[in-house]
Amino acid sequence: MNKTIEVCFTPKLFADITTKDDYIVVLADILRATTSICAAFQNGVKEIIPVASLEQAMELKSEGYLVASEQDGKKLDWADFGNSAFNFTPEAIGGKTLVYCTTNGTRAIETARHARKIAMGAFVNITALSEWLVNENKNVVILCSGWKNKFCLEDSLFAGALSEKLLKHPGFETFCDSAHASMDLWNIAKTDLPAYLEKAAHRHRLKKLGLDDVIPYSLTADSTSVIPVFEGGVILDKG
Amino acid sequence: MNKTIEVCFTPKLFADITTKDDYIVVLADILRATTSICAAFQNGVKEIIPVASLEQAMELKSEGYLVASEQDGKKLDWADFGNSAFNFTPEAIGGKTLVYCTTNGTRAIETARHARKIAMGAFVNITALSEWLVNENKNVVILCSGWKNKFCLEDSLFAGALSEKLLKHPGFETFCDSAHASMDLWNIAKTDLPAYLEKAAHRHRLKKLGLDDVIPYSLTADSTSVIPVFEGGVILDKG
Repeated sequence: MNKTIEVCFTPKLFADITTKDDYIVVLADILRATTSICAAFQNGVKEIIPVASLEQAMELKSEGYLVASEQDGKKLDWADFGNSAFNFTPEAIGGKTLVYCTTNGTRAIETARHARKIAMGAFVNITALSEWLVNENKNVVILCSGWKNKFCLEDSLFAGALSEKLLKHPGFETFCDSAHASMDLWNIAKTDLPAYLEKAAHRHRLKKLGLDDVIPYSLTADSTSVIPVFEGGVILDKG
Repeated sequence: MNKTIEVCFTPKLFADITTKDDYIVVLADILRATTSICAAFQNGVKEIIPVASLEQAMELKSEGYLVASEQDGKKLDWADFGNSAFNFTPEAIGGKTLVYCTTNGTRAIETARHARKIAMGAFVNITALSEWLVNENKNVVILCSGWKNKFCLEDSLFAGALSEKLLKHPGFETFCDSAHASMDLWNIAKTDLPAYLEKAAHRHRLKKLGLDDVIPYSLTADSTSVIPVFEGGVILDKG
C-alpha cells in the first residue's frame, strides 16, 4: 500500500490531521530551530534535549547543562546560546549535550510527541532526509512550526519541496490540499527563494532584530546529511 | 492610515489573528455555505438565521421555520433543504426567513461573532463585495471555512482573488504570509479554476456524494451583487 504525505501548516492544526497511526512527523522551523539543530549535529553535538518551557530550560542550566533559549527570536540573557545556527560551532558544542528551548520549534515537538518518530527537516538536510524517509517507508506528516500559531511562508515552502521529492518515489501519494498548495508555492519560489521570501513576515522580524545573517545558510540545500530524530525525550543523529 | 488585509486559513486559527479592533470579517465557504447564501438572496430570501447546532436547527424547524441543514455535505432527512445553492429557488424561499445550519459555514460565523460585521464572500459576488469593502473602509480579515478545521484550496483561492482585488486600491496593504500565499495560488489557478481544483480534496468528497453539480456555478464570478451581512444574529442583504 502507498504511504501518504500530509502537510500541517501550524501546530494548532495538528490535532485534526487525517493521517492515523504509524507515521513519522517531519518538523520544519526553517529560519530557526530545525536548521539550527541540523547545524549543531553537523558540528558534532552529542545529543539535544528539547524543552518546551523556559522554567525547564533554566532548571537544566542550573544543573550545568549548556542551554540555547530565545523568546520572540532574541537570545535570553541567562542562556548560553540563542537559536541561530551560527551559535553552534564545533568548539562550543562538539561532543556535548545541549538543552534547546525556542518559541516555536520545541513546542511543535511537544505537539507531535505521539508520532512514532519526529525528524528535524530543513533545506540544509532535505535530500538526506527524503532518502531516509523513503527507507523508513511510513506515512509522513510535515509539521510546519509557523509563527505564533500562524501559517508562515518559509516552512510551507520547505513542506512543498520535501513533498515534491517524496512524490517522485512511486511508494508515496497525497490527498492533502495543504500539500498541493505548498508544492505549487514551492514551484513559484524555488528559482529565487530569498527574493520570494522578501514578502515573508518572519524574515522581516529577523531583519528588525539584526538576526537575518543566517538566512542564506537556512535557504541553501544539502549542506549536511544529518537526520536529527526525536525519540524518547532526546534528539540524536540517525543519518 | 492604510487598512490591512489578513487571511485566516481555517476557523481554528482565528483566535490568533493579528488584526485588532474594528475589522470586517469576510467569510468564505465557496463550495457550500457562502455561495448558497448569496444564491438565496439573489432569489429573494428575506433574511437568513444561521445556527451552529443541529439542536437549534431542529427546534426552529418545529416552530415552523424553513430549515436548511446538512452534515458532511448531505441534506438531513428532517430538513427542508440541504445547502446546495440550487435548492434555493425563488419559489422555495422568495420573501421568506430561512434557518441555515451547515458543518463548516455557520460554525465559522460563530467563530467570528466579535467582528464588527461578517460579510459572506464567494466568487459569485466577489466584485460587488470588493467595492462594498472599499466603501466600508475597515481592516479586512478573510476567514476561510476550510474543511473540518483543515486548510482547503477553494476557500484559499477565493481569499487570494479578493485580496488581489482589494490591494488594487491604494488604501489597502497586507503583511500577512497567508494573504501572499493565497494570491500566488490564485494566480496559478485563475486561468482554469475547475482544472486546478481537480486536486482539491473537498471537491472529490462532493463528487462522491453526487453533489458536484453546483461547482461550475460556485466558481463563476459575479452572477450577483448581493452582499449578505451578518449583524445582530441575522443575515441581511446590504448590497
